[in-house]
Amino acid sequence: MVLIVAEELRKGPFIDPWGSVLVEDYVRIMERFGLEPFTDELLKALPRPNKLMRRKIVFCHRDLWAVAKAIREGEPFYVLTGIMPSAPKIHLGTRMVIENFKYFQDVGASEAYLLVADVEAVATRGLTLEEARKRALEFHIPAYLALGIDPDRTKFYFQSENRTVLRLAACFSGKVTMAQMEAIYGTVTPGKVIAALLDAADVLYPQVRARGMIGVIPVGIDQDPHMRLMRDIVRRTKREFGFVPPASVYHKFTP
Amino acid sequence: MVLIVAEELRKGPFIDPWGSVLVEDYVRIMERFGLEPFTDELLKALPRPNKLMRRKIVFCHRDLWAVAKAIREGEPFYVLTGIMPSAPKIHLGTRMVIENFKYFQDVGASEAYLLVADVEAVATRGLTLEEARKRALEFHIPAYLALGIDPDRTKFYFQSENRTVLRLAACFSGKVTMAQMEAIYGTVTPGKVIAALLDAADVLYPQVRARGMIGVIPVGIDQDPHMRLMRDIVRRTKREFGFVPPASVYHKFTP
Repeated sequence: MVLIVAEELRKGPFIDPWGSVLVEDYVRIMERFGLEPFTDELLKALPRPNKLMRRKIVFCHRDLWAVAKAIREGEPFYVLTGIMPSAPKIHLGTRMVIENFKYFQDVGASEAYLLVADVEAVATRGLTLEEARKRALEFHIPAYLALGIDPDRTKFYFQSENRTVLRLAACFSGKVTMAQMEAIYGTVTPGKVIAALLDAADVLYPQVRARGMIGVIPVGIDQDPHMRLMRDIVRRTKREFGFVPPASVYHKFTP
Repeated sequence: MVLIVAEELRKGPFIDPWGSVLVEDYVRIMERFGLEPFTDELLKALPRPNKLMRRKIVFCHRDLWAVAKAIREGEPFYVLTGIMPSAPKIHLGTRMVIENFKYFQDVGASEAYLLVADVEAVATRGLTLEEARKRALEFHIPAYLALGIDPDRTKFYFQSENRTVLRLAACFSGKVTMAQMEAIYGTVTPGKVIAALLDAADVLYPQVRARGMIGVIPVGIDQDPHMRLMRDIVRRTKREFGFVPPASVYHKFTP
C-alpha cells in the first residue's frame, strides 16, 4: 500500500505499488518523478477545497490545473478510483482517496467511476476470482458506501466483467517493453505486468466513449508508478486511441 | 511461424512460437520436450486417418490416445484452432492445421472452435485492433472457409470480444513466474507474456462451460511452447478451475 523509506530511495528509483513500506521523503519523490507541488495558488483555483487539500495532506499532483479550469468553466471531466479487494480492511489512505473522490464529484465531475480490481487481486495477491469478488461484495463495497460514496451518482464495475478494460490492457502490452516496466517497477512478474496494464486500462476506460475527456485520479503517492506507465502508454498509443492522460492528485500517507 | 534449426537447438532449449526459423531435427525436439511419436498403433486406433496422418507428416502428439478413445466410444470432445490475422497469406502449415481440424470434426468432435487471435496480433505484431479485425474479416476467415471449414458446425470468436478468455488470461498471470516463461520462451516482452497467456486461455476456454471435457489442438510444432505453458497452468490452477490439458497433435513443417 504505502512505500519506500528515504533509505530505500537512495538505493534505487523504484516505488513499489504492491509493497507496504512508508515514504518519508516526499520532496525527493516529487523531484525525482516530476510531480507538481499542491500550491496555495492551485488551492485558490479550486472551489471549496476539502480539509485534506487545505491542510496540504494533498501535497502534489500532475495536470490538476486542467481539472481546476474544467470545474470553473463547467466542462465535463471524470473522476475514477479503484477498490483492491484483498484484505478486508479500510486504512486511512483509502479514506483519503474517498474524500478526494467525493470532492471532485461534488464540484461537478460529469462521470464518477468506482471499479473493483478483482482481476488485479487474482494476478498479484494469489486470490481466486471468486474470493476476490466475494470480499468486494461483502466488505469493500459496503465499506465504501458507508464512507459516503453515493451509489446513484457513481458507476461501478468489476474488472472481470469489463471486456473493454481487459481488451485495452492486452492491447497496451504490445506498446511497452520489459525494460520500461522494470525502469518503473523494478523486477516484475507476469502478474505485475498484467496488473500494471489493467491499471492503465481502468484509468483510461472512461475515454473510450468520451474520447479525450479529461479526468482526475485521486491516489496515494505509492500508486504513482501506475500513473507514469499510463502516461507512457498514452503517448505510445496516440495514433490508435487518442487518449489524454488524466490528472492525478496525491495525498501523503499518515498511517 | 516455423522454428529453430538443429544448430540453434544445440545452443538452447527454446522454440520461438513467434519466430520463423525452420525445425530440422524433429527427433531431438520430441526427446527434449517429451512429445510422443505418432505410431502405427495410434494410427490404427483412429478411424479413417487422413493423408497427413497416414504419411506421418503428423509425426507426434501429446495425450492423443485419450481422444482416440473418446472417438471410439462416442464421448464428447472438442477441437480448437486459431487464426493469427497478421500477414494476409495462408501457408502450407495453415492448410495442414485445417486438414487436421476437419478430421477431428468429421470423426465426431462435439464442439469445434475457430478463434481469431486479434488481441494477440496487437500484442505481438504491432497491428492496431482495427487492422487485425479487418484483415481477419477480409482475408483470413474467407480463406479458412474456402479451405473447407464448415461455418455451420464451427463456433467462431474474436479474442477481443471474448470476455471469458481475456479474464482467464489475466487470472493465469498470477500463477506463472517470469523464470518459468523465460525457461519456455527465452526472453519475453510484455506483449509475449499476454499472448502466451491468451493462448492458454483460448485452448482451455471450451472447458469453462464443459468442465474437464477433453479436447485436441492441431498445431505446428512451433506452437508447442504454448502447449507446455498451458499444461503448467492447468496444474497450477487445478483447485480453482479443474481444467484438463487438451491433447495436441503436431505436423512437420514442409515450407
